[in-house]
Amino acid sequence: MAGKALVGLDLAFTSDVVSQYASSRASGFAFIAIDLFHPKSILCNGSVPDSSALPATRSDLVFKNEENLVKSLVGKISPTIDVDSDVETVRASSEVALRKELSWAVHLGLPAVNIRLLRPENINLARLLVNFVRNEPSSVSPKLNGGGDSNLIIDPWYWWTQLFILASDISDSLGLVLDLPNNLPDEYVISRWLSEPVVCLLLRTDLFLTNSKGYPVLSKSHQIVIRRFFKLNVQVMITGSCRHDHGYVSYQQYLMWLWKTLGDPDLYEQQSKGLEDQLQEPLQPLRDNLSSTTYSIFEMDPYKYQAYETAIYEALQHRTRCNRSTQSPHGPNDTSPNEMANGPLETGSLSSDRQVVMVLGAGRGPLVNATLSAAKRANCDVRVYVVEKNPNALFTLQDRLAHEWHDKDVHLCGGDMRNLDISEKADIFVSELLGSFGDNELSPECLDGAQPHLKADGISIPCSYTSFVAPFQSAQFYSETKRSRNSVSSAQETPYVVRLLNCKVLAEPKEVFTFRHPKPGIHPQRHSPQMVSWFPMAFPLDHPVYVRAGESVTVHLWRVVNSRHVWYEWALTEPRPTRIHNGAGHAYKLTL
Amino acid sequence: MAGKALVGLDLAFTSDVVSQYASSRASGFAFIAIDLFHPKSILCNGSVPDSSALPATRSDLVFKNEENLVKSLVGKISPTIDVDSDVETVRASSEVALRKELSWAVHLGLPAVNIRLLRPENINLARLLVNFVRNEPSSVSPKLNGGGDSNLIIDPWYWWTQLFILASDISDSLGLVLDLPNNLPDEYVISRWLSEPVVCLLLRTDLFLTNSKGYPVLSKSHQIVIRRFFKLNVQVMITGSCRHDHGYVSYQQYLMWLWKTLGDPDLYEQQSKGLEDQLQEPLQPLRDNLSSTTYSIFEMDPYKYQAYETAIYEALQHRTRCNRSTQSPHGPNDTSPNEMANGPLETGSLSSDRQVVMVLGAGRGPLVNATLSAAKRANCDVRVYVVEKNPNALFTLQDRLAHEWHDKDVHLCGGDMRNLDISEKADIFVSELLGSFGDNELSPECLDGAQPHLKADGISIPCSYTSFVAPFQSAQFYSETKRSRNSVSSAQETPYVVRLLNCKVLAEPKEVFTFRHPKPGIHPQRHSPQMVSWFPMAFPLDHPVYVRAGESVTVHLWRVVNSRHVWYEWALTEPRPTRIHNGAGHAYKLTL
Repeated sequence: MAGKALVGLDLAFTSDVVSQYASSRASGFAFIAIDLFHPKSILCNGSVPDSSALPATRSDLVFKNEENLVKSLVGKISPTIDVDSDVETVRASSEVALRKELSWAVHLGLPAVNIRLLRPENINLARLLVNFVRNEPSSVSPKLNGGGDSNLIIDPWYWWTQLFILASDISDSLGLVLDLPNNLPDEYVISRWLSEPVVCLLLRTDLFLTNSKGYPVLSKSHQIVIRRFFKLNVQVMITGSCRHDHGYVSYQQYLMWLWKTLGDPDLYEQQSKGLEDQLQEPLQPLRDNLSSTTYSIFEMDPYKYQAYETAIYEALQHRTRCNRSTQSPHGPNDTSPNEMANGPLETGSLSSDRQVVMVLGAGRGPLVNATLSAAKRANCDVRVYVVEKNPNALFTLQDRLAHEWHDKDVHLCGGDMRNLDISEKADIFVSELLGSFGDNELSPECLDGAQPHLKADGISIPCSYTSFVAPFQSAQFYSETKRSRNSVSSAQETPYVVRLLNCKVLAEPKEVFTFRHPKPGIHPQRHSPQMVSWFPMAFPLDHPVYVRAGESVTVHLWRVVNSRHVWYEWALTEPRPTRIHNGAGHAYKLTL
Repeated sequence: MAGKALVGLDLAFTSDVVSQYASSRASGFAFIAIDLFHPKSILCNGSVPDSSALPATRSDLVFKNEENLVKSLVGKISPTIDVDSDVETVRASSEVALRKELSWAVHLGLPAVNIRLLRPENINLARLLVNFVRNEPSSVSPKLNGGGDSNLIIDPWYWWTQLFILASDISDSLGLVLDLPNNLPDEYVISRWLSEPVVCLLLRTDLFLTNSKGYPVLSKSHQIVIRRFFKLNVQVMITGSCRHDHGYVSYQQYLMWLWKTLGDPDLYEQQSKGLEDQLQEPLQPLRDNLSSTTYSIFEMDPYKYQAYETAIYEALQHRTRCNRSTQSPHGPNDTSPNEMANGPLETGSLSSDRQVVMVLGAGRGPLVNATLSAAKRANCDVRVYVVEKNPNALFTLQDRLAHEWHDKDVHLCGGDMRNLDISEKADIFVSELLGSFGDNELSPECLDGAQPHLKADGISIPCSYTSFVAPFQSAQFYSETKRSRNSVSSAQETPYVVRLLNCKVLAEPKEVFTFRHPKPGIHPQRHSPQMVSWFPMAFPLDHPVYVRAGESVTVHLWRVVNSRHVWYEWALTEPRPTRIHNGAGHAYKLTL
C-alpha cells in the first residue's frame, strides 16, 4: 500500500505550480489539483472570454522536464463556466471557455480534469463532453464533482445519473468526485453512491475535528464512510485552507493512517483481491478440463471441505444405523462374497456395514480425503470410488493413490460419471459440481446421469441446491458489459461470474431453481460465510431499467435444456418489459 | 386492386381442405385459415398429448400438386394450447403441442400461423416463439390475435406490447390480428392500435347487420374503422357461421366494395403511394447533385409554386411601392447606367422600378417561371439571375433559357450561391432549400452565404422557417430502424425522412428552431395541406421509452455546426433520460 497515490491536495490558485507541487510532495501528497486558468481571467458574464486571458500556468514551458508533475496534476475547470445557463450569452461564452480549458488540459497531457456540477440538469455539459471526448484523439478524463451541500445530497445522485446516461457514449471516461458533507446522509443515499464509479472523495479541512494533541481527526461516522469507499479504491483529496497547527501533512498522515488501519481483509477479500468487479466467463467444467490453478482456488476454501466431512460423517452414521436395524440375523443382504474377502476385516460388525462412497468429479482429491476422514471418525469401513473425467487431474489422483491412499480401499475410475462402469452401487454420492448460480456447471445433468449407480436408498451429498436472484444496480457493471459489447455483440446477454463490490443490491434474494437428488438427506449448511470458491453470477440487462421507489421488479429466468446444451434466458416484465435476453441461447450456452 | 389478397375466410374444422379451399376461392376469398390439428386431438389437461393424434390434414400428401393452396393457408394453433398456464402439467404438455403444431406448419410451408392470446401475460409463449423462430431456418410468421372481447379492448394493447417487447428478437416475424368487437372502443384506443403492425382484422359474421335485400352490411362506425386500417394495407378475415342468405360470398363482396369505395386518394396519398413507413435517408443537395427524378418529385407539388408566385408578386408590389415613395425627382438611386440601356424600355416608370430577383438553387427552373409569372401579374420589370450549382440541372436551364426565356431578362449563373460572382445586388432572393425538418438541407448556411448579394432592404422568400417536433410511437418504425441496425450499427441514431402512416402522434408539435433571413417580409403560408414534397423527418430512439399517461416528454435537440459539417444530436430527459443520440455527429452529418 506504500506506493498508492492515495491522498491529493486541492490547491488554491497558484502561479507557481512547480514549487507548490514540490512542497505538496514533501508533505506526502501524491497528486494536486490546480485551476487551469486564473479564476479572474474567466468572465462568463455574457462577453466572449478575453482572448488575452492566459492559462494559470501561462505556458506549457513550466512543465519542461517535469513529466512526473504533469502526471500528478488534476486540472480544475473554472467554476464560473456555466454551459447550462439560461442566459444565452453566458452559455455561449461558457462553451468557448470550456473548450479552451479542456484543450489546454489535453495539450499539457493531464490525466484528468475536474468539473463541478452546478445544476440539477447538465444537458449541454453532457453534449459538450461527448463531443469533446469523441473528437479528441488522446483525451483527458473528466471527473465530475457531485454537489457537496448536505441538503442536496439526495438530489445529486439524480444529477449524476442523468448526466451519466446522457453521456453514456463516453461513460468510460467519466469518474465521480464526491464532496463529503458535514452531516452525513442516510444509509440508503450512501449505499446508492457505492454503486457508482466514484474515483475520489473530496474532504474539506473544516470536516476535521482537532484531537487533544492538535491533530486533525474525523468523526467516527465519517471514518466509517471513508473506509467503505476505500474498499472501492477511491482516492481522497484535501481541500480548503489548513486549519491545524501541524500543516497539510497532518491531514495526509491521518488519511494514510485511516487507510492502513482498514483492518486485515478477511479470507474472502484476500482471495478475491484484484478480481473486484471484473467480469469472468463462467466455467464449463463438463466441456473444458479445469486447470491446476482452478483446482487450487477451489481447494483453498477451508470451510467447504470441513462441511463436506461433517456431512459425510453424518451420512455414514445414518446409513450404518439403518443397516443395523434392518439386518437379518444371518448377515447383511448386499455384501458380495469378494467384499468379505477383500475388505480390511478388523471387526465383524464393521465389515457388514461397509459403505460404498463414490466421489463424482473428484478433481485432485480433496473430497476423497474428506470421505476418508469422515469414515475414520465414524469408525466405519468405506470403499471409495474416485470418478474423474479430466485426464490431467487423473495423473494427480494416481499419484495420491500410490502414495497416500495405497492402504485404503480406494479405486480410481477415469471417465464421465454419466457412463460409469462400476459393478456395484453406491451408498453415498459425494460431489462438488455447483457453480456460482448453483446448477450452472450442470450438476443436475451430471448427477442425474450417474443416478443409476446410486442405491435406491442411497444419499447424495449435496442432496439439493437452490439458486437465488436479487436485483442490483451498478454503473460499473453496466459500463463493463457495454464496453465488451464493442468486441462481442452479445456481451450484454451473457451471464458473468463477478465479485461485485461497486454495486447496490436493491432487494432481498428470492429463490429461483431447486434441484433435489434422489433422497432427502444430510447436506452442508446453506449459508457459509467464509466460502471463497464462489462469486455470484450476474445477469446483465442490455439497457438500464429505471425503478422507482415502491415499484416491483419481476424477473423471469428460464433454464432451458435440449439434447446438447443448457442455457439461461431472462427478461423483466416489471416495472416494464424487456426483451428476452439470450433467446435460444444465441449468446451463451453450456455444452452437455 | 383486383389482385389484392384482401379477404380471407376462417374455416371451422375441416378434414377436406382441398375442396373447402376450392369452394372458398369460388366465393372470392383469397386465403383460408384452418386448424392445424383436430381440436379434439389436442388435450392439454395435464397429459402429454397423445402421440397418435394426427394433424387435421392427416398427412402432407393432401397438398401434393397444390402449391397455391399451401401459400393461401393460415394455420390456426389449437386454442386449448396454454403455455402460460399456472398448472405445470398443462404448461408442459402445451409446450410439446405448440412445438408440434409449429413444426407441422413449417413442414407444410405455410406462410403464417395464427395464435390467439389467452392471457394478459404471455411470457412463456414469447420465449417459445423466440426459440422456435431463431432455430427454424425457414420459419412461419406467427400472427397474434389481440383479444376480441370488447370489455378488454384497452388491456390487450398491454398484452401485445409486453409480448412484442419480450420477443423483440423476432419482432420482424410478428404480426397482429385484431378481433373487431361489436362495441367499438374509444378513439384513443383505436389510434393506438394504428401504430402497431396490424396485418389482419378478424370480422365475426355476427358483427354484420342485414340490409333490406338480405345482404350483410356493417355499421357506419365499423366501416370507418375498417377503412382506416385498410390504409395500412391490412387484410380481413371472416369468421363464424354464415348468417345471411346469400352465402359467404356476400361478406367477401361487401368487403371488396368497402375497399373499392375507400375514396380516391388525395394528391399527398397518391404521391406517397408505396413509400408509407419506408425509411429514407434525408437528401443532402449541397453535397450531392440531385437527380432528375428528385426534381420531378419536387415539381409535382402544385400548391407550393402557386404560393411562391403569390409571395413573389407581393414582394414585387411591396418593393415597387416603396421605391416610388422614396424616389427622388431626378430618378432612382440604385439604377446603374447600363441597366438603363439594357432593360426592355417599355415605360419609363417600370424601367426605374426594375427588380433584380435571384433564384438561388434553381434546379430545373420552376421558381424562374413563378418569378416571371409574378412579374407579369405585377406589371413589373424584372431581371432574373438563375443560380444553380448542379451541372446536370444547368443543361436543362440552358435549354430553357434558349427556348422559353430567350426574350426575358434572365441570366444563368453556374456555381455555389455562397460564392456568387454577380456585379449587382438582388432586391429579392427566391429559394426552395428547405428539407423535411426545415433547415436540414442547410438552407440557413446557403442563404447566409449568399446574403452579401442581397440589398440591405432586400427580401428573402422564404424569410423565415421553423422546425417542429412531436413525439410519436410506432412499432413499425422501431422495427425498421432495429432491422437496419443489423447492417449499419448507427441506424438508430440517424434521422430519416419518412411518410409515417403506421404510427400514433402522442402530442401537439412544438417549435424547435427558427431561422430568419435578412428582413421580415412576405412568405408562403405556414400550413399547406396539399404540399407533397415533404415527408416529416423522424428521429429514432435506440430503445423504447415507456411513457405513462400524464407524463411529460422532454426532448433536447441540438443543431451543431462546425466548419465542415452540420448535424443534429438529440436526447430525452423526461420521462427518463436517454443517451445523447448521434453525439459528435458520429452516425450522421451533413456536409457543408
